[in-house]
Amino acid sequence: MDVETHDSTPGVKQVIIVNNALKLPKGKLAAQVAHAAVAAFLEADEPVQRDWLADGMPKIVLKADDEEKLLALEALAQAQAIPAYLVADAGKTVLAEGTITCLGLGPAVEDALDALTGDLKLL
Amino acid sequence: MDVETHDSTPGVKQVIIVNNALKLPKGKLAAQVAHAAVAAFLEADEPVQRDWLADGMPKIVLKADDEEKLLALEALAQAQAIPAYLVADAGKTVLAEGTITCLGLGPAVEDALDALTGDLKLL
Repeated sequence: MDVETHDSTPGVKQVIIVNNALKLPKGKLAAQVAHAAVAAFLEADEPVQRDWLADGMPKIVLKADDEEKLLALEALAQAQAIPAYLVADAGKTVLAEGTITCLGLGPAVEDALDALTGDLKLL
Repeated sequence: MDVETHDSTPGVKQVIIVNNALKLPKGKLAAQVAHAAVAAFLEADEPVQRDWLADGMPKIVLKADDEEKLLALEALAQAQAIPAYLVADAGKTVLAEGTITCLGLGPAVEDALDALTGDLKLL
């Protein structure tokens, strides 16, 4: 068992941004966010992974208005070598194939993530 | 970018079970599920991790009636050496400290997970 951390602490964190245009059912939404979290984690360098795990895996889930915003954030993150992972749906249930559902960023330095996502609201 | 897989395929998968007694807000719920997904993944042996990643990280989010059910499932999983990770909340926002929010199981062989969780409904 572990204790999840939500509030901001200095160090590294992870941010997952949901495409709020989709209004996904909560179970599907949670699965997509989990997918982004695991995949973005695997994109990070090992020392950053270790720091994030040691800190209790702090993460936050935000919302963006549409797919275009997620694509723009992915490009900005990649330009800064911040781990970034876009999740697209396989289209087998409620969504059209390839619909972008969310973006995972980090683990990465908190200030760098805040500079990219500070204008977004909590989901 | 990757495509998320939801439906059942032979092989390994991950199951995250939410404590449905809590009626968490969707953003908080998604963060807790993501936490369980990453942590349970890290509990798995490397060959299983690799198989699950190669399969597109299939995962499903289910619901259980209460904390007791999550604790019982964790015990059953551990007895079968299935990766299991209980997430408790730090209690800084809407929940009392230590509230168990969800349980991550796997990646593990699909049949073994179905035997444990086949009676649970999709969130």
